[in-house]
Amino acid sequence: MCTTCGCPEEGHDHHHDHDGHLPGTRITIETDILAKNNRYAAGNRALFKANGIFALNLVSSPGSGKTTILERTLCDLSGNLRCAVIEGDQQTDNDARRIAATGVPVKQINTGAGCHLDAHMVGHALEELPTREMDILFIENVGNLVCPASFDLGEAHKVVVLSVTEGEDKPLKYPQMFHAADVMLLNKIDLLPYLDFDVEKCLEMARRVSPGIRIFQLSAKSGQGMAEWYEWLRGKG
Amino acid sequence: MCTTCGCPEEGHDHHHDHDGHLPGTRITIETDILAKNNRYAAGNRALFKANGIFALNLVSSPGSGKTTILERTLCDLSGNLRCAVIEGDQQTDNDARRIAATGVPVKQINTGAGCHLDAHMVGHALEELPTREMDILFIENVGNLVCPASFDLGEAHKVVVLSVTEGEDKPLKYPQMFHAADVMLLNKIDLLPYLDFDVEKCLEMARRVSPGIRIFQLSAKSGQGMAEWYEWLRGKG
Repeated sequence: MCTTCGCPEEGHDHHHDHDGHLPGTRITIETDILAKNNRYAAGNRALFKANGIFALNLVSSPGSGKTTILERTLCDLSGNLRCAVIEGDQQTDNDARRIAATGVPVKQINTGAGCHLDAHMVGHALEELPTREMDILFIENVGNLVCPASFDLGEAHKVVVLSVTEGEDKPLKYPQMFHAADVMLLNKIDLLPYLDFDVEKCLEMARRVSPGIRIFQLSAKSGQGMAEWYEWLRGKG
Repeated sequence: MCTTCGCPEEGHDHHHDHDGHLPGTRITIETDILAKNNRYAAGNRALFKANGIFALNLVSSPGSGKTTILERTLCDLSGNLRCAVIEGDQQTDNDARRIAATGVPVKQINTGAGCHLDAHMVGHALEELPTREMDILFIENVGNLVCPASFDLGEAHKVVVLSVTEGEDKPLKYPQMFHAADVMLLNKIDLLPYLDFDVEKCLEMARRVSPGIRIFQLSAKSGQGMAEWYEWLRGKG
């Protein structure tokens, strides 16, 4: 486990201690961080179950289009389903303001220098959302393809968003995240004509690290492919 | 300071401990992580100075085009300057192989689940590179706009790469990184005709969090704007 990000760390030794600092103490404390997170995640999961809430944890690189996907999804589903959103960002409430404009309840979490949401933060945010009147909760994580992979928030699924502008090799380069996700939204497909992006190669790479991953190809800008994603949401996974 | 990423953490309390775990011990250990990193960074910096090496730490989101920028830069500068590269990735040696194809010395670091390079890893990689015959060292960090901001590798400058496909608001949403960088490469400008991206707004936001930041607008794919970047590199910043 890496002392600097709290993630499990295998097959390399850069944090093995060369000058005698407390390795045992480090391991205990880091294990405690994830164990404690898992306790809070279990609490969130129980709350979701008790209230029939389908909770999704949206993860991606910065700028892959999570917020734009949410804006369009919330507008298009609002007639049928009661949605709410938790917005995670290092700074600014830009995204929360964009979501609030759709009329859906939203709670912002600013992580400051923090690199991911944890289950404790989400639990606090839930106290300020109408959990008794909610069918789907979208949790938009901090834009980061590494650290959020290790933190269970109590969600039903991690949904990884990958924009075609990022290159088809990302599932292999960030395997923890794609392995942790069981749904992938391949976004910005309206830009494919202007890019050298091999869709089939990307899907093959995603399936290599996460066999059985459910993949939707879409563009939140043009609307292409959104219907299949909505169908999946309406069936609640 | 956040126990899970090792980054300084201000103005929020989610990691304040609610059930009695060793907060004092945590702070001591986390401070130690950055202090230890800074000692290794000082060692790297001394080595760079002794050998006249101009070292740059390239940071960005996954898929912003760091490797493509490097490939083109190395090919175009190889007649004049002796370059070398350290490649940081969670997994795969794809990028290192792309760099090796340019004929430039390259050393791969796989961080596994780790979310950033640290100065200790870089020091080890330097042992396997020809530091006596090197004018510029490019360190390509793990694609992550959060955690690498806190880790000095001994570089002269952090160079943040932002692709226009990521949206103009990223400097405000990831202010630690843009504040830590004093050079920004705004990449993929060949795609501007197909996007809603406000260049002036982006530059203004970057300057708001990092006054005096040096900005190059370019496309590693079309070659547009690369000459100004090369001129800056030849003058060694």
